[in-house]
Amino acid sequence: MTGQTAYQELEALFQKVHHFTHLSSMAYWDSATMMPPGGSKARGQALAEVSSLINDLVGSRKTGDLIEKAETARDGLSDWQQANLREMQRQHFNASSVNSELVRAHALASSRCENAWRELRMENNWKDFEPLLSEVIDLTREQAAIRSEASGLSPYDALLNLYEPGQSSSTIDTVFARLKAYLPDFVKQTVEQQKGEVLIRPSGSFPREKQRALALDLMKAVGFDFNHGRLDSSHHPFCGGVPEDVRITTRYTEDDFSESLMGVLHETGHAKYDQGLPGAWLSQPVGQPRGMGIHESQSLFQEMQVCRSHAFLSFAGPLMAAHLSNPETPNACWEADNLYRLYNHVQPDYIRVNADEASYPLHVILRYELEKDLVNGNLKVRDIPEAWDEKMQEYLGLSTRDNYRDGCMQDIHWTHGMFGYFPTYTLGAMNAAQLYHAARKAIPNLEEQISRGDFEALNHWQSQAIWSWGSYYSIDELMLQGTGETLNPDYFIHHLQQRFSPL
Amino acid sequence: MTGQTAYQELEALFQKVHHFTHLSSMAYWDSATMMPPGGSKARGQALAEVSSLINDLVGSRKTGDLIEKAETARDGLSDWQQANLREMQRQHFNASSVNSELVRAHALASSRCENAWRELRMENNWKDFEPLLSEVIDLTREQAAIRSEASGLSPYDALLNLYEPGQSSSTIDTVFARLKAYLPDFVKQTVEQQKGEVLIRPSGSFPREKQRALALDLMKAVGFDFNHGRLDSSHHPFCGGVPEDVRITTRYTEDDFSESLMGVLHETGHAKYDQGLPGAWLSQPVGQPRGMGIHESQSLFQEMQVCRSHAFLSFAGPLMAAHLSNPETPNACWEADNLYRLYNHVQPDYIRVNADEASYPLHVILRYELEKDLVNGNLKVRDIPEAWDEKMQEYLGLSTRDNYRDGCMQDIHWTHGMFGYFPTYTLGAMNAAQLYHAARKAIPNLEEQISRGDFEALNHWQSQAIWSWGSYYSIDELMLQGTGETLNPDYFIHHLQQRFSPL
Ligand SMILES: [Zn+2]
Ligand SMILES: [Zn+2]
Repeated sequence: MTGQTAYQELEALFQKVHHFTHLSSMAYWDSATMMPPGGSKARGQALAEVSSLINDLVGSRKTGDLIEKAETARDGLSDWQQANLREMQRQHFNASSVNSELVRAHALASSRCENAWRELRMENNWKDFEPLLSEVIDLTREQAAIRSEASGLSPYDALLNLYEPGQSSSTIDTVFARLKAYLPDFVKQTVEQQKGEVLIRPSGSFPREKQRALALDLMKAVGFDFNHGRLDSSHHPFCGGVPEDVRITTRYTEDDFSESLMGVLHETGHAKYDQGLPGAWLSQPVGQPRGMGIHESQSLFQEMQVCRSHAFLSFAGPLMAAHLSNPETPNACWEADNLYRLYNHVQPDYIRVNADEASYPLHVILRYELEKDLVNGNLKVRDIPEAWDEKMQEYLGLSTRDNYRDGCMQDIHWTHGMFGYFPTYTLGAMNAAQLYHAARKAIPNLEEQISRGDFEALNHWQSQAIWSWGSYYSIDELMLQGTGETLNPDYFIHHLQQRFSPL
Repeated sequence: MTGQTAYQELEALFQKVHHFTHLSSMAYWDSATMMPPGGSKARGQALAEVSSLINDLVGSRKTGDLIEKAETARDGLSDWQQANLREMQRQHFNASSVNSELVRAHALASSRCENAWRELRMENNWKDFEPLLSEVIDLTREQAAIRSEASGLSPYDALLNLYEPGQSSSTIDTVFARLKAYLPDFVKQTVEQQKGEVLIRPSGSFPREKQRALALDLMKAVGFDFNHGRLDSSHHPFCGGVPEDVRITTRYTEDDFSESLMGVLHETGHAKYDQGLPGAWLSQPVGQPRGMGIHESQSLFQEMQVCRSHAFLSFAGPLMAAHLSNPETPNACWEADNLYRLYNHVQPDYIRVNADEASYPLHVILRYELEKDLVNGNLKVRDIPEAWDEKMQEYLGLSTRDNYRDGCMQDIHWTHGMFGYFPTYTLGAMNAAQLYHAARKAIPNLEEQISRGDFEALNHWQSQAIWSWGSYYSIDELMLQGTGETLNPDYFIHHLQQRFSPL
């Protein structure tokens, strides 16, 4: 077999994987949005089966041999094919490091833990949750040790690399140290400074159907492609599905629309990245998103940089009023200045997903520090609640003692077996600020366009900077070609200073 | 390897198949209910991929060898295991008889024909449809010949056996002859007899949400398990999903709720069968439904035997009134006598899916006779319209000359490459009548229970008679153990006589 033939066989193999990933993604989406509770056991088994099949296909010895063979013909491949081969190699390495029995055990334990979590969190029941989480963490540590052995990275970095290829915790430690030194005081100052602000909060009832109609209007305005996607509801909002059919979800609260609204726009940012991936390469590794930190940069670009800006809120205000106005909410509520104050109000709170932009990184840093210790064995599962409480007090001045629901049981990530994922949220926030800074330089009247609801130039710019590249570049290269430099936390800090300076 | 070990390996293999079937079923359901149009190409590829994987797993040489090996240990297997092995053998035989190239060619021709059919039917365009259908029928005949060669059955019976294992067209010929001799005159008489009836038709608008709420109430009343299933909307109603999570669909028409309502109850009958399959064997061939004629018997048992009865309508009337009453519909509409007349009105018409219970079998017999001739080569595709018209005139006194849309182009089955399926509708109707007769003997006050909305004893009886057996018995054995005799068309004819005798 020639190297060229080997490469062609690899493309065919990864296309097959793409089809199975399609089924897996849709089944996962369904389990969060549509599935009745009694279906969860069978679903968990089906998902575990296909994930083990995918792992076998990607990680097989045969795939490894084909990659080796294809490497010999590298010079005859196009640039994109070469990048594709590199990404195949990366996926093969990740899949082959861990045997499929362990992958399956981990998936099953996670599914058990996640299913129980929904109830147990409501009940604030840490006691029954702890053994389920322990099981997940034991299997995670087992995986981390094997991946560490194979890659030469630390156990935590070996997991981090699954979500953020090529990144290391030492880099993250450095940028997070910067934020940790800056943010606690900044949060306090901003709370002080905002004390005098008059906020007109929307009140009354906002029926789900009206919230949904507004969300659909805004999704459409910013460029979500409804021919290739949907909006639904789930307990924990996410962006799922496949690039050809992106499924985003939200959760509605009838007495407060604001949470759902910005949540939808956040997921829309994720979705636009997926929908904008290079069409010719969707079935191949190089056509996939470039890691979760970049993915989150696109959601936060949409939500934080664009949609919480004064310009966007002056565009969205009238639409919000048209859908949601009611006798209890004065018209002044829908004015841009008021919305801007509402959507940029800093208030340390327990829940990460509700956190304001300035507190949010502190939630992430807390989780990052704890999960590093959990993976490295420096923290026992039973000690999580206490460690959580301590750090919450230190970073945000709040105690979560005996409040597991709003403390260490609030997130789905660990129950789902995802360790090494949390830092990508704040990497995303920093990337987003840096990218938006570059976009503003490239599009001189950007804010004026946004205030008119015109996102064409901006979407085009994002497509050129990020979306259309898939995994062609490394993360550093991608940021470099998109913004002229690699990750620089200054842009984020500068953004916060601007965002929270008085109007 | 011992025969016992081989059997265990087979169970593991079919469990894997069960998991992939789960993903395939859910993805199919999603494509009919949720998927945006732009997702269809990727979905089609993913579904084709998994169906080819399933076919490979079930039909492989290795599976055949394991089955042969396991046969040597048959005596050491339990009764259920033996039945399971027999069903494994049957599935393996079906999957391995035809090579995958032919399966693929057939699937592609069917997909071409089906896609064109949607437009061509609207245009009443037989001329352009004919060559597409010819292609499907040629490939169907090729498959039938190969399956006939492998099984020793006639070509038509070889196809019929895919849907109705162990049944033959000679048995069907006999029972259909009985119906053909009886029904045309019976339909005429019933139309005459019903001429004097006063029907109060519900009128006005019946919002989807209200229809849905009523449907959910009635589904719940008759025993649909919402912990293991859902109701949604689709263009063509169906019962899909998996036994652990059964998804039924309906289509709402706001100016007429009756079509959706009985449709939902029909699909609920299918669903209750799936939900009642033997829990310990769900992942194995023996845990699957016993063919389409038995499946349809359960939907028609629910719809025709139970839900169109006077007893049921006297229970459902007040619920219908509570959900749907409006100023334009007089209260008398919701009375049992009126509903009974409405839901049992005989009126020969062109369209099978809208047919009343007495005409319906004649639609089926017409198709059965034509498709037998098509498969055996005794009817050319170009002669279908004339043959259709002749039989419609003979059986129902209606001409479809030049009216292809309401004649031979009305159904999806042939365009979809399904030959041998049509007779299962009427086998189902006959089985249902025979089963209901047995249930009435077993539960003396059954109708009184139904009129109170109490379905516990009846569901228990159906579970014992049919559901809990999966594919343990052959069709004949199942009917014998459930009713004391094998298929006997007298019960259906008797049922029609009762049903359409004056109130
Ligand atoms: Zn996000
Ligand atoms: Zn049916």
